[in-house]
Amino acid sequence: MSKAIPVGVSARHVHVTREHLDILFGEGYQLTVKKPLSQPGQFACEEQVDLITEKGSFKKVRILGPERKQTQVEISLTDSLKLGIKPPVRDSGNLAGSPGLTIVGPKGQVTIEEGVIAACRHIHMTIADAAELGLKDKDIVKIAFGGERGLIFDQVLIRVSDSFKLDCHLDTDEANAAKIGNSDTVELIK
Amino acid sequence: MSKAIPVGVSARHVHVTREHLDILFGEGYQLTVKKPLSQPGQFACEEQVDLITEKGSFKKVRILGPERKQTQVEISLTDSLKLGIKPPVRDSGNLAGSPGLTIVGPKGQVTIEEGVIAACRHIHMTIADAAELGLKDKDIVKIAFGGERGLIFDQVLIRVSDSFKLDCHLDTDEANAAKIGNSDTVELIK
Repeated sequence: MSKAIPVGVSARHVHVTREHLDILFGEGYQLTVKKPLSQPGQFACEEQVDLITEKGSFKKVRILGPERKQTQVEISLTDSLKLGIKPPVRDSGNLAGSPGLTIVGPKGQVTIEEGVIAACRHIHMTIADAAELGLKDKDIVKIAFGGERGLIFDQVLIRVSDSFKLDCHLDTDEANAAKIGNSDTVELIK
Repeated sequence: MSKAIPVGVSARHVHVTREHLDILFGEGYQLTVKKPLSQPGQFACEEQVDLITEKGSFKKVRILGPERKQTQVEISLTDSLKLGIKPPVRDSGNLAGSPGLTIVGPKGQVTIEEGVIAACRHIHMTIADAAELGLKDKDIVKIAFGGERGLIFDQVLIRVSDSFKLDCHLDTDEANAAKIGNSDTVELIK
């Protein structure tokens, strides 16, 4: 059984808590929507921060809103080499034992002890999508993509919720290894 | 039929002509061996150059020796976004229509009109290896790698010559998408 799934490529980004937003941008500061993301209620913000480690830095890294319960930095493994840290490949929110770094905003800076991960590739889908495909939350599937850098990704995590919309999230290393862009679709292979 | 193939991960690098080496490092300059590479006669040099486009730059990019007939810059597609150029995915030496950039050395700089590519993933092997595997030069095969970012790469080019040593070359996007390192092996799948 196979199905075409739209792709969203995630560049490095930051999710912030209310507490950290107060420090980085000022007490009570509200994130500004730049554009909605594929997942309902999620948005790219106008706000950007710098990420700094002992070995390197990235300037103007975008915050994705809304605020979250934990501050989380998602980078590619290519990025991690520049920063000299070793983020684990993890599902969003699973931060235990991950490395930290310093986040610098216009009004202040925060050093997190953990929270930097390389996102595990995953597919968001609704309960109806999952039923149609015979899948359940946390299943692992394969996806295929053709073309001049054609490949099959294994270890793709299924995330099911009616707050989601069908979308396959890859990071920039994965997308570039396959030469996949945001307008492409991948084929889900059970 | 399957066979374990050692992996070499290629970071961004530059091959230079004698003419360009004269300009970048001075007339008659000789490249200095930093360490031998997996392919016989090839070596990483002590010499580094900066790569500059209108949109971005990379400092201290290593030259790989020996000198070549054409200057060639190999970058990842992640790198290409920072530089704002669109290198084709190509086999080494196939540079027609590829973008250029400016290379800056300690004694001068060179602007090449073409020569920047993203390397096509490939496996170097001897004639004996090819015979054992029933392959020939320019065949396309698949390779598999397991683990937490397990995948199967299609479109892997076979290069056969007795001046080669068995080695699968991936760029940093490909290696990071699979979480493969230089001490890993991939499985060739016919």
